[in-house]
Amino acid sequence: MENIRVLVRGLGNMGSGMAKMVIDKEGLDLVGGVAGRPNKVGKDVGEVVGREAIGVNVNNDLVAEIKDKKPDVVLQANTSFTKDAFPEIKEILEQGVNVISIAEEMAYPSVQEKELAQQMDEIAKKNGVSVLGTGVNPGFVLDTLIIALSGGAISVDSIKASRVNDLSPFGATVMKTQGVGTTVEEFNKGVEEGTIVGHVGFPESIYMIADALGITLDKIEETREPIVSETYRETEHVKVEPGMVAGCRHVGKGFKDGEELIVLEHPQQIHPDKEGVDTGDYIYIKGNPEINMSINPEVPGGVGTIATAVNMIPLLVDAPAGLTSMKDLPVPRAIVGDVKKIMGRR
Amino acid sequence: MENIRVLVRGLGNMGSGMAKMVIDKEGLDLVGGVAGRPNKVGKDVGEVVGREAIGVNVNNDLVAEIKDKKPDVVLQANTSFTKDAFPEIKEILEQGVNVISIAEEMAYPSVQEKELAQQMDEIAKKNGVSVLGTGVNPGFVLDTLIIALSGGAISVDSIKASRVNDLSPFGATVMKTQGVGTTVEEFNKGVEEGTIVGHVGFPESIYMIADALGITLDKIEETREPIVSETYRETEHVKVEPGMVAGCRHVGKGFKDGEELIVLEHPQQIHPDKEGVDTGDYIYIKGNPEINMSINPEVPGGVGTIATAVNMIPLLVDAPAGLTSMKDLPVPRAIVGDVKKIMGRR
Repeated sequence: MENIRVLVRGLGNMGSGMAKMVIDKEGLDLVGGVAGRPNKVGKDVGEVVGREAIGVNVNNDLVAEIKDKKPDVVLQANTSFTKDAFPEIKEILEQGVNVISIAEEMAYPSVQEKELAQQMDEIAKKNGVSVLGTGVNPGFVLDTLIIALSGGAISVDSIKASRVNDLSPFGATVMKTQGVGTTVEEFNKGVEEGTIVGHVGFPESIYMIADALGITLDKIEETREPIVSETYRETEHVKVEPGMVAGCRHVGKGFKDGEELIVLEHPQQIHPDKEGVDTGDYIYIKGNPEINMSINPEVPGGVGTIATAVNMIPLLVDAPAGLTSMKDLPVPRAIVGDVKKIMGRR
Repeated sequence: MENIRVLVRGLGNMGSGMAKMVIDKEGLDLVGGVAGRPNKVGKDVGEVVGREAIGVNVNNDLVAEIKDKKPDVVLQANTSFTKDAFPEIKEILEQGVNVISIAEEMAYPSVQEKELAQQMDEIAKKNGVSVLGTGVNPGFVLDTLIIALSGGAISVDSIKASRVNDLSPFGATVMKTQGVGTTVEEFNKGVEEGTIVGHVGFPESIYMIADALGITLDKIEETREPIVSETYRETEHVKVEPGMVAGCRHVGKGFKDGEELIVLEHPQQIHPDKEGVDTGDYIYIKGNPEINMSINPEVPGGVGTIATAVNMIPLLVDAPAGLTSMKDLPVPRAIVGDVKKIMGRR
């Protein structure tokens, strides 16, 4: 069996991390990197991402690069939304190449873009390849792990899960989209105007869980509330006085027969430790039996997204053609030995 | 789509629990129960398992019952070992019927019975059906959940997991096979002579994890040590004085390049609370990132085995023909709504 040829689209933090991981894994070959930024184009992909030169330069023409390098899989790491991801995914699939996207909406694209999801499924099937959206969340913590844990339950009455993380390492853009450093009034105005967005992915995770468990939901609701700080907190990019906003408590709820069946919480703030909040991933399944899971600290966002995307490569290449999702593929797993040993067993 | 027709083989605690769960689930029909015990044969299956009558009596002839009731799936709950499970599995597959077995060795049967595993794979493929072994452990906690969690890791240096449970509710047979109530000398002699067996399933779990992650192990080792009590503990079936054995600390290790790569522990004892031991399932993945998971208390053994076996029905019916395993099927999930909504999406 040949090594799997991988091309990375987008060489920001996530794309660069994936490229490094691909270089480091036995059985995966990094065959190209495509990025828009002029300061990267023309430089060796390996050097751009912080490894040794691999003898391939960053290109800015995705289709030309696919035709030249003939990858088996493209990892797409340059957008959050399906409508932005779609044009390139279409082009990649039409070249007969599999796609793994970390665009959050792509984790379950039928939720926001039913028509585009159908088109991707058809194009993928027509070209005998597959397309998957994944990442740490949506894609892993607040959907795949919840689904997997529920497998040990005879009955499920409700699901409540929470991902508590620390935004302190992030830059100015994240501070703005989470409302860190605003007043409560500014926060509420930002939510109303759509500049403070919180987490992208709750509808995707909630509907993925519901479909996996055979549940038809009535509706879902999302709320974004300010985490008002009682202490002084600061990072390189922002200062938060007591009474100001340290982050966004974003909650997504899925209702069935008027009851809250699936409740997912993602309070994101800087320095949660300042007020005694432990970061972690928490899943509580009420049913028979009750299943009460904690991961402390949380699976980190950046590393987790890089890992889930690259780890799914062998499972996606082995999958039937079409648009797929984390709930439909075999359980995720780390690539430790040669990727080729993981493949071809199904 | 029609409901899935399920027949249960073996109507002890596990088989009865599965039969009840099948009765309770929308989209599954319990069409028969086969048991050897004369006190059950001829009685209504529903009433035997503690539900209302379903109009079908317990039969003791498996093949005749399959021909008559035409199930889609047989749940096998009457043995722990592949060599004992094989003759009936072969007959079931030859009738063109899928099998889910809770025989511990069947979770990864190629480990102990390579030849029989190949035969089952061939017979299943020839008849266009599938066969799976599962249960709470092996099958879920110390293999599937470990594999799934590792999916969030860029690299894995080692895996250590522990399932700490309480044997107090179990009967006299379990006390004997775990050495509860023996002296240390009697315990060591029992281990040597094979009457004290500890947990059945470590080789299966360890090799399933290794294969999932693409690791070729050098060897595995198992140890069984007495849990010597410092306190007085008793149950309905056994009394343990201080200095006597309260249970068996069974450990399985998978080695790679001479190092312990996968270490699974399953200390089983009565009343662990007497010495401040919390029951739970614990998984620690050392790598990038470190992933540190706890489930408190542990996913209970009986309920968990019933749940995993029945919950895998729709995934197995949808799977490609052949011998499969938990690492090769989609992530497990609870059946909450109609089973038919869970199917046909892959």
